Amino acid sequence: MTVSSKITLVGAGPGGTDLISLRGLKALAKADIVLYDALVSEELLQYCPQAVQKIYVGKRANKHAYSQDQINEMLVKYALSHGHVVRLKGGDPFVFGRGYEEIEFAHKNNIETEVIPGISSAIGVPSLQGIPITHRGTTESFWVITGTTSSGKIAQDVYTAAKTSATVVILMGVRKLPEIVRIYKEAGRDSLPIAIIQNGAMPNEKIAVADIQSIENVAKELHIESPAVIVIGEVVSFHADYQKLIRENELINI
Amino acid sequence: MTVSSKITLVGAGPGGTDLISLRGLKALAKADIVLYDALVSEELLQYCPQAVQKIYVGKRANKHAYSQDQINEMLVKYALSHGHVVRLKGGDPFVFGRGYEEIEFAHKNNIETEVIPGISSAIGVPSLQGIPITHRGTTESFWVITGTTSSGKIAQDVYTAAKTSATVVILMGVRKLPEIVRIYKEAGRDSLPIAIIQNGAMPNEKIAVADIQSIENVAKELHIESPAVIVIGEVVSFHADYQKLIRENELINI
Repeated sequence: MTVSSKITLVGAGPGGTDLISLRGLKALAKADIVLYDALVSEELLQYCPQAVQKIYVGKRANKHAYSQDQINEMLVKYALSHGHVVRLKGGDPFVFGRGYEEIEFAHKNNIETEVIPGISSAIGVPSLQGIPITHRGTTESFWVITGTTSSGKIAQDVYTAAKTSATVVILMGVRKLPEIVRIYKEAGRDSLPIAIIQNGAMPNEKIAVADIQSIENVAKELHIESPAVIVIGEVVSFHADYQKLIRENELINI
Repeated sequence: MTVSSKITLVGAGPGGTDLISLRGLKALAKADIVLYDALVSEELLQYCPQAVQKIYVGKRANKHAYSQDQINEMLVKYALSHGHVVRLKGGDPFVFGRGYEEIEFAHKNNIETEVIPGISSAIGVPSLQGIPITHRGTTESFWVITGTTSSGKIAQDVYTAAKTSATVVILMGVRKLPEIVRIYKEAGRDSLPIAIIQNGAMPNEKIAVADIQSIENVAKELHIESPAVIVIGEVVSFHADYQKLIRENELINI
């Protein structure tokens, strides 16, 4: 019997176990082997046939279990030996998930691929906290930026974004918070609302809400760490915590 | 018996019927009444109990069946009379879906609300066509802009976006294509790859791929109309149709 090789990238959505799509679940049910990431709930693996091998390839305590090159090689190797490889990733595979590197490597090796999108944390995590990423009359756009570029530096786009009225979402950016705050202050946006949501859509979720001026202190008090989603813009003012700050007169410039 | 009133906004994701989340399906199964939009597959309604009333509130041939104010009123009225209202929307409820207006109105009327995010067409539709919205080394961000602001004019953000290296996604913008092209040409981006995907993730999907210089002609030849997602940026060059244009030497400036 010859093996029919295929690699399916599946976006699991943020946190939880029921934000994955029905199509994603169907792919898991047809997996011959699964490679999954750190931000994926292990409960999702119950949708795979029981005999199927599940390999953890994420990082823990900032240490990658495998490099991206190693993961690419594993995907192709297992597709050839096992058949249908499901690559389960947090959020959406193409939103800073390095998914396209895996697709390119598969194609170079003549392996068929499929991509099943997921709910991106950039949209879903603020949404579940009651922060709409857009609101008619408040914002015409949203701009999603990685906090960690391949060079290790902050994305240059943050400098431009700080000058627009777009809702700005920064993923993987908590360690860059002092730089982000500096850039926004230089753009004169000290009173702009900002939220940082750690462990979005999970039972241990935490949120810090403030303005640019005071977010560093608030995040420090609440011990906010990665993984977290940063949301900056007027839409953050709809959050109950921000409304409370207004009532308690704890914001500057109001 | 008193009715327990609640309004749940559910994002159905783009096209298809199986891109909705498991949590969205569970909400449908517990609906006492459903109000659904134009871009939602009617097949999804089979997940509701059969006796449940399903009300179409979308627009056809550019004519709204109901105004947003009327929809807000209906949601509250049905929550009070029927109990659990599921408001089923295409894509994600907070991505230019006017979802937050519905939430605000519900809260003013003391009705409990829940939001279940969906896969946004802005990310999912390009993804299913093989266009990754981000790719390491190519783009550090993506910027999603509405083509139709409340004033009817093109969003000012398009002018700024045309000068950045962000992948730019414009929703509901097909009728503004000539203006979008003009703005990008003025920014000297004539050779930037662009795709327009009509009826994304549906059986009658169509795509036009070109550069800024020639997209208007290509879209006209293929009779591309709304609803469509416009994607602009280097990531579009990964699409098979763009690779074909390169091979056939049909692009300028290469």
